[in-house]
Amino acid sequence: MKHFKTEDFVLESGTKISDVNIAYQIFGDFSPSKKIVWVCHALTANSDVEDWWNGLFGKNNLFNSEKYTIICANILGSCYGTSFKSEENLPIISIRDMVEMHQRLADFLEISKIDFLLGGSLGGMQALEWSVTNPDFIKNLFVIATNAKHSPWGIAFNEAQRMALHSGENGIEAARAIALLSYRNYETFNETQKDDEEKLNHFRASSYQNYQGEKLKKRFTNESYWMLSKSMDTQNLGRNRTSIENALSKIKAKTLVIGIESDLLFPVSEQKYLAKNIKNAKFEIIKSLYGHDGFLLETEKISELLKNHFEDLKS
Amino acid sequence: MKHFKTEDFVLESGTKISDVNIAYQIFGDFSPSKKIVWVCHALTANSDVEDWWNGLFGKNNLFNSEKYTIICANILGSCYGTSFKSEENLPIISIRDMVEMHQRLADFLEISKIDFLLGGSLGGMQALEWSVTNPDFIKNLFVIATNAKHSPWGIAFNEAQRMALHSGENGIEAARAIALLSYRNYETFNETQKDDEEKLNHFRASSYQNYQGEKLKKRFTNESYWMLSKSMDTQNLGRNRTSIENALSKIKAKTLVIGIESDLLFPVSEQKYLAKNIKNAKFEIIKSLYGHDGFLLETEKISELLKNHFEDLKS
Repeated sequence: MKHFKTEDFVLESGTKISDVNIAYQIFGDFSPSKKIVWVCHALTANSDVEDWWNGLFGKNNLFNSEKYTIICANILGSCYGTSFKSEENLPIISIRDMVEMHQRLADFLEISKIDFLLGGSLGGMQALEWSVTNPDFIKNLFVIATNAKHSPWGIAFNEAQRMALHSGENGIEAARAIALLSYRNYETFNETQKDDEEKLNHFRASSYQNYQGEKLKKRFTNESYWMLSKSMDTQNLGRNRTSIENALSKIKAKTLVIGIESDLLFPVSEQKYLAKNIKNAKFEIIKSLYGHDGFLLETEKISELLKNHFEDLKS
Repeated sequence: MKHFKTEDFVLESGTKISDVNIAYQIFGDFSPSKKIVWVCHALTANSDVEDWWNGLFGKNNLFNSEKYTIICANILGSCYGTSFKSEENLPIISIRDMVEMHQRLADFLEISKIDFLLGGSLGGMQALEWSVTNPDFIKNLFVIATNAKHSPWGIAFNEAQRMALHSGENGIEAARAIALLSYRNYETFNETQKDDEEKLNHFRASSYQNYQGEKLKKRFTNESYWMLSKSMDTQNLGRNRTSIENALSKIKAKTLVIGIESDLLFPVSEQKYLAKNIKNAKFEIIKSLYGHDGFLLETEKISELLKNHFEDLKS
């Protein structure tokens, strides 16, 4: 893991942060013949894209480091290496603040253009924002299971999680259990957490929720969880830009937007809207048992659609 | 509010409870010419059905106390007047235990037959169970937004709420916020909690969740919330009865089952299944902006369907 130190920064919310240290990873070397792939990660992920987006990244996969130079930075607010000092205990970090840090890192790395910018969910929010704010910098854009403006429904899900965080030390476990409900759906739980025996207690779905909660508690912090869920709420590409449509019309990248039919948290209507308002965009829909989590799991279907859409990926 | 004291009782889970005191209300007097309507209430409701199911009950509504004798008992585990002592601190109370208490109260009131048994959600679970266990006692049955066996999805939602309860004193507020997500849906929040101004924090959907959490905390107890959510998980009409289909086939009541198209928690497939397996049942579907909560709010549509289905309600 590499680190990049950058200057003091005033967040969009007005809070000043200092000693900003961005953790990032580069997979594959820089060479003029290699295309630059930049990945923006989602809520609880990190800069190790070959780990959390395996199937799409890593050896033998579409984006492998032999063919591409792949960059992923740990986002501002996350606890996987990126750090800063702040005037406020828990500042509001907007998606735009995250993108400003990505841009600073890209400038530091002397990257003149990103060939492929990718992101799903919170990562997709950053990828869209970056494409709006610096349209000439992004050649091709791929986003999945994301939106232009976070919905009241999504904010309500995040607020329930923050209320759990506020309840006490183990609140992050409950928060994770809530999040999982939004990442999956009725069918997912039916197919994977059904009990065979007749019982009155100790159902599999309950054990699963607790297990997942404990797992996140071990690898994440309450502070990061709170800040990143707040960041997600700030997503609004139209803020101070007349309208969302106007913002999206600025994107110059050739774009693929994928929606997952069973996604409860970011329903396909949100991705259809994106594709409709981005000039050079195509919308595709994939079926998945896994709802929103399909963006991490349906890597075969995603790879196929990416190869079909982007000429540059065929060779 | 009236109280009915009953004998010691061994719960289905094996735990002995004593000093059982069931709170109930009767709207309208008993008279041979008046039909008996019995309502089973849902998770956070109580015996005052004219309050929480207003529009369907109360003056000028389909079920008014001038025409009917209406009975509603506060369920075992709830904190609205019903109480008991228990060997275990928080015993597992099954839907069958609740129904046993309803039956004891009905016997005490010397009721020989219930003309209309009604319930939605957790109330529907009790109404179904009662109709299976004592088919000759129930003449007409109406259930809405309920199921024969609680789903892994529903249990996962309940577990997330219990994890929030376990986190600390204010956990019940987070639990309520989680529950609301399952009672509503994307569209409900979009239509009712959208912000007009551009902002980075203090979104309406967040305030709404906190407001609803605080409201429940004032009127409910952690213990009751925990126990009743556990009760919901136990719903399985087929337990020790060969199969769910076999259990449902025992129901003799003329039955109306309503599903709400936008119900995320109890999807319509569950009510279709009920109607398919109850001999004398009709299935109807209603549209609602309010998802699962539609069972409380769409009283006009429900009254219409009830009047169309049950001859006895037309006069």
